[in-house]
Amino acid sequence: MLFDFEYHNPTKIYFGKTALSNLESELNGFGKNVLLMYGKNSVKKTGLYDEIVQILDKCGKKVVELAGINSNPRYSQVLQGCKLVRDNDVDLILAVGGGSVVDCAKAISVSAYAHGDPWQRYWIDYEDVDNKIVPVGSVLTMAGTASEMNGGSVITNEDQVIKNGRVYGPEVYPKFSILNPEYTFTVPQHQMVSGVFDIFSHLLEQYFSGDDDNVTDYLIEGVLKALISSAKVAVKNPLDYQARSNIMWCATLGLNTITGLSKEQDWEVHMIEHQLGAYTDCPHGLGLAVISVPYYKYICKYGLDKFVRFATNVWGICADGKDKNQIALEGIDALADFIKEMGIPTTLRELGATKEMLPLIAKSSVKGGGYKFMDENDILFVLEQCF
Amino acid sequence: MLFDFEYHNPTKIYFGKTALSNLESELNGFGKNVLLMYGKNSVKKTGLYDEIVQILDKCGKKVVELAGINSNPRYSQVLQGCKLVRDNDVDLILAVGGGSVVDCAKAISVSAYAHGDPWQRYWIDYEDVDNKIVPVGSVLTMAGTASEMNGGSVITNEDQVIKNGRVYGPEVYPKFSILNPEYTFTVPQHQMVSGVFDIFSHLLEQYFSGDDDNVTDYLIEGVLKALISSAKVAVKNPLDYQARSNIMWCATLGLNTITGLSKEQDWEVHMIEHQLGAYTDCPHGLGLAVISVPYYKYICKYGLDKFVRFATNVWGICADGKDKNQIALEGIDALADFIKEMGIPTTLRELGATKEMLPLIAKSSVKGGGYKFMDENDILFVLEQCF
Repeated sequence: MLFDFEYHNPTKIYFGKTALSNLESELNGFGKNVLLMYGKNSVKKTGLYDEIVQILDKCGKKVVELAGINSNPRYSQVLQGCKLVRDNDVDLILAVGGGSVVDCAKAISVSAYAHGDPWQRYWIDYEDVDNKIVPVGSVLTMAGTASEMNGGSVITNEDQVIKNGRVYGPEVYPKFSILNPEYTFTVPQHQMVSGVFDIFSHLLEQYFSGDDDNVTDYLIEGVLKALISSAKVAVKNPLDYQARSNIMWCATLGLNTITGLSKEQDWEVHMIEHQLGAYTDCPHGLGLAVISVPYYKYICKYGLDKFVRFATNVWGICADGKDKNQIALEGIDALADFIKEMGIPTTLRELGATKEMLPLIAKSSVKGGGYKFMDENDILFVLEQCF
Repeated sequence: MLFDFEYHNPTKIYFGKTALSNLESELNGFGKNVLLMYGKNSVKKTGLYDEIVQILDKCGKKVVELAGINSNPRYSQVLQGCKLVRDNDVDLILAVGGGSVVDCAKAISVSAYAHGDPWQRYWIDYEDVDNKIVPVGSVLTMAGTASEMNGGSVITNEDQVIKNGRVYGPEVYPKFSILNPEYTFTVPQHQMVSGVFDIFSHLLEQYFSGDDDNVTDYLIEGVLKALISSAKVAVKNPLDYQARSNIMWCATLGLNTITGLSKEQDWEVHMIEHQLGAYTDCPHGLGLAVISVPYYKYICKYGLDKFVRFATNVWGICADGKDKNQIALEGIDALADFIKEMGIPTTLRELGATKEMLPLIAKSSVKGGGYKFMDENDILFVLEQCF
């Protein structure tokens, strides 16, 4: 059942090999001063940086730069960006990179003119934004977070040792995002598969809740099947444009809110991985993959019909002559096989965890869940299953 | 493969039983003068008209009305609306009704301040809109056209005896649309099933083209499965909220452009039905249903793999031990069974067509197609199959 929802996603997407050709006309819609943000050196190595600077020049923009944004963007970088925005009266923040650069750009966008301490107000107290919001545009180079078409902004406050996520409203979404799948070709293989499973997990976290008949579940099944099909191609041939373009669009659809409408959602795998990452610094998607299999095996009896549906509709498991439990488990086995096919580790040990970490991870994880509320013991049990 | 596309859909959707409670805050975002548009008497009978007028009053709006919009909105009504907009300096056009009222509202929106003859410029010459666009909002009472979240505007010019559709850009999309599935409860059963097949056909027209692996095809399959599941419930119990809410959201997703991205698309069934409708005035969705089965049987050999996919992924046809042709035909048979289950006629005769009309319909239909270019003889053959 579709319960009451609001859907509003005003981001303009330019997708494909020639997507960057739209940057000029977009830039012309904003004022003269641009803050150009990017990560480490990869955009310079690939030549994308030069291309973009040329277009900015052609449009007569005055550009200031904020480089070196981390994969976990830090609050100190946000504050640096805020100062640049104010000092240069910036009209547009242009983020070039993956989700972390875009997350950081949104953080600067809401914080530059904040009244009071933005970290406390926006990432701790979750207050509404009541100040000028500087527009953000993005040129995406990695598929995964959907930050290019949502209001998410995960920031690490290194002084307070807190990593907090905040989902802002549509007024903070990027005004435009440029998605050329070819830009993802240079992402190393382990990061590509990590991204694939991050997308996969976003979809599963939204899918595994509720027992109603709901359009959104069918949409998620569609995106999952598209992702599986293309990930199997891309892992063998990362330069397959068709596969990489499908993965990139699946990433956007997977968390631009359309696959979450009227879903209670789960997100416990992300909560546990969050703490796993804090202890091991393992790639996010790989951590999600390792935790997912034992997690879903543990909770599947609490949402059995949905796991049966997952097995038959997503993985094409034949249900004939099997009981529900068996069908459900075959679906999770198919997920495990997919993870292996991606070349993703299957144990926490391989990701750098030690036996001693497990109780600490279990204790510090935010408790919650979809079909089952996961308490500390539940989480520890799951972690032990994949150690 | 996802070829280059642009996606931008800024319409804000309020969905659910309490959706109308958002009208007040939306109205407050626009100026004082409102043009309230609706169809015949149904919005007055259901009490929705009174509710909306009360909210408009509460917001202190000065309201002018344009009532009696036809199911095929006429250009003379557009011109009437344009005069009301200009004479009253209208700040917002509020369309209450089905797709035709929203289509008509969009037509007034672009035409009120047009330089020159809007019909010629916008519906015949397809020129870009270069004048002030009056914002539109909608309160939807029927599921089908997705006009609530797209730029479509089909208008009949009764003087020139031409019915023309135009798809405008996002600047013409409704700024907000209020979708309460309960408003669709009073739609008569034959209109409900006509709407269901209209949605179904939108999805099939987008689906049946291309032989690539493309996220959009998986999305369409998801929406089709959701629609089939809920239509089967709604046809037996039209007051089932879950089913009607799913149908309403499937309608929006079915033509808000997201299920058409990177698809070449077909639309020949719509082209033929357009002329069938001109001769018989039959309900659009019923005409589409009757034509679809022989049409797809006729073209399926030209896109055989896609029809095999349709059979297995949408209808769950078991492929074991069958050749492709057999699987494809079983899929189309499943579609035919679904149409029967909806209580939809299966012959043109039942829709009021005569044998003499068939060559005239074939001759006047716009020629085109997805997997096969349909010429006059092809179309006549299809029409004879379902006479």
